[in-house]
Amino acid sequence: MTPKEELQGRIKRLQDKMTAVECDGVLILQNVDLYYFSGTMQNSRLYIPAFGEPVLFCRKNLNRAASECPWGLIPVSNYRSIPDSLSELGYPLPKRLGLEIDVLPAAVYLGLIRLFSGSEVLDASSWIEDLRAVKSPYEMEIIRRAGRKMADAFASVPSLIKLGRSELAAAMRVENELRKLGHQGCVRMRGFNQEFFYGHLLSGSNGCLASFNDGVTAGKGLGSFFPQGPGEKIIQVNEPIFLDYVGVFDGYNIDQTRMYVSGVLPERLKYAFQVALEIQARLTEHIKPGAVASDLYHLAFDIADGAGLSQNFMGYGSERVKFVGHGVGLELDERPVVAPGFRVSLEAGMVIALEPKFVIPGLGIAGIENTWLVTDSGAEKITVLPDELVTLPGDNILLSS
Amino acid sequence: MTPKEELQGRIKRLQDKMTAVECDGVLILQNVDLYYFSGTMQNSRLYIPAFGEPVLFCRKNLNRAASECPWGLIPVSNYRSIPDSLSELGYPLPKRLGLEIDVLPAAVYLGLIRLFSGSEVLDASSWIEDLRAVKSPYEMEIIRRAGRKMADAFASVPSLIKLGRSELAAAMRVENELRKLGHQGCVRMRGFNQEFFYGHLLSGSNGCLASFNDGVTAGKGLGSFFPQGPGEKIIQVNEPIFLDYVGVFDGYNIDQTRMYVSGVLPERLKYAFQVALEIQARLTEHIKPGAVASDLYHLAFDIADGAGLSQNFMGYGSERVKFVGHGVGLELDERPVVAPGFRVSLEAGMVIALEPKFVIPGLGIAGIENTWLVTDSGAEKITVLPDELVTLPGDNILLSS
Repeated sequence: MTPKEELQGRIKRLQDKMTAVECDGVLILQNVDLYYFSGTMQNSRLYIPAFGEPVLFCRKNLNRAASECPWGLIPVSNYRSIPDSLSELGYPLPKRLGLEIDVLPAAVYLGLIRLFSGSEVLDASSWIEDLRAVKSPYEMEIIRRAGRKMADAFASVPSLIKLGRSELAAAMRVENELRKLGHQGCVRMRGFNQEFFYGHLLSGSNGCLASFNDGVTAGKGLGSFFPQGPGEKIIQVNEPIFLDYVGVFDGYNIDQTRMYVSGVLPERLKYAFQVALEIQARLTEHIKPGAVASDLYHLAFDIADGAGLSQNFMGYGSERVKFVGHGVGLELDERPVVAPGFRVSLEAGMVIALEPKFVIPGLGIAGIENTWLVTDSGAEKITVLPDELVTLPGDNILLSS
Repeated sequence: MTPKEELQGRIKRLQDKMTAVECDGVLILQNVDLYYFSGTMQNSRLYIPAFGEPVLFCRKNLNRAASECPWGLIPVSNYRSIPDSLSELGYPLPKRLGLEIDVLPAAVYLGLIRLFSGSEVLDASSWIEDLRAVKSPYEMEIIRRAGRKMADAFASVPSLIKLGRSELAAAMRVENELRKLGHQGCVRMRGFNQEFFYGHLLSGSNGCLASFNDGVTAGKGLGSFFPQGPGEKIIQVNEPIFLDYVGVFDGYNIDQTRMYVSGVLPERLKYAFQVALEIQARLTEHIKPGAVASDLYHLAFDIADGAGLSQNFMGYGSERVKFVGHGVGLELDERPVVAPGFRVSLEAGMVIALEPKFVIPGLGIAGIENTWLVTDSGAEKITVLPDELVTLPGDNILLSS
């Protein structure tokens, strides 16, 4: 349960923003934003006025919402009653109303602009995303705990990957380790058409396959209907085994990538892995309040370029993606994005997954990913697992499934 | 890979609808609709004219899209080029343009109405949902295969549920059985703010807890941040153990609920379970082309009422949900909905999950769920597992985890 003071702090920060942009009220609908500002994910709508306390209009489940959310709760059978109800409660109807334009379905949005026909509608998405990008000490503790769980789960990985086992068979064992530690299963993403299931366990050249998703790796997946993640490919000797996993504990996502090999990794991948480590070291030296996200991207690119790997950086050739890191939190795809054009200054409390990776056609992918907390004194590593490329024990051949 | 003739049939049915409503073109963006009409889920937009072949505008991954989709493929770096590109290809710009208003994010929708400023925008959601509700023989085969996999997975359930084990610990074992058979993990839902992870394994009174989700059951879940599904509750003797699981195989969802008990189920739950079976028997007698969805709901309610269980039907008291079944397919929440007001005639090819369930406060939930195919000769059971309440073997106490 989110403490009331924590929620008060979040509301206050949004209200400061609302005052600055002359927005009179924000109506929150999306489940993750709702949880962030109210403490509950029950079927409800949260009205946040520029001044005063929020009100939660709830359809179901009332008991759960009441026990989780400290704001005034108004049971409703239909959300169309919200404007009338606000008036009855003494809240003036907003002249300027903020909505989550980035995630509201168009049908819901069109319904709301009819319902609040006297209000000018503003896009509150950016305010919310910027606010959520900076984590509170309360959130930092949850995120640190998640980092330790990811290390615990990955401690088992060397015993789960066996030569002769398919990517999928190895992946389901890793999924099980994460689930045992309380992983919620569903990875929440804000981006349209994006989805993710636990992780990408990819071996050898399967790591080179790009797909629809906004990421460096995709893999073959299960078929055209689920075109990402592990597939039927059998894990073999002397090829990179790449595990990019998302841990979701107590609602918070963290992102971690490690590499394994049975036998010896091809020299070109070993080299790329070392360059990735170097990029990570240089970026994390620069991570502190005031550092500019896009500068970090260019620094990473320049190191890759200097190492002769510009065509392999974050994808290959025309399929390279244009970022090297992204915020994580209640959703996997948060701000800041460490990418060209994102001239955003880092702030203490931001949590960023940095993932320098190289795709070497025909051979696979090499790289590292850790989640970092921006602190006043620099980058704090959240994913505390050591960074090494792990060579699997010699007897790790699958004898029986 | 979806065969070209299959995709042609789907396009033809949409074009017939478009002609009937004088819509000149539909632009498809959402990943599931995109897969349905194009065979690919790659990052792309499908333009379907009222006459002639569709065109796929693709950003990434081009190779995958080209190998999965038989329609003409135009690589684009930015979707804003679509109107110009359509003109160059000789397609007149649509006077009336259909969009997926139910699922497009408002920001994307607003971008599209600016981009197609000369077009009147129509809501194509209903046309698509109605079309997808009726499955082709090709889809029926995939769905039948999924039904057999659900039976295979559930064959292991009696050995996975042990007294003394938590719901979550039992659930992760069931998840693993499903994953072994190729479950894709992500359950796709069309409804705003809806999500689902594999299933609800709920024991005893935990089965009575409602939550935000549009379903009969929710359970406690992991916390306010994930308020549905199995939790830490320990499975005990003489209480209902309720497994409502979604199988997603080759992209298609099917829905199945079974009940288990170690020891003896309380009489009131046994009785409710028998009434649920009776409702299922009566409904499936009536399932055939021409039967009206809302009539089926009222028939079910009347049986529940006649059995003295109206207050327990599909929830308890004020928390009852107003449906007894729903379509399933590429998404879990498809049409038709078997609910009051849905005066829709069933058609051969519809696939419906029927789930008569009763919540008995303090004791738990009792009910059944199967997925049925509507055929000309009646209801075909897709989830072929026997319907019985399963009494677990006497020695199923957890000795070591």
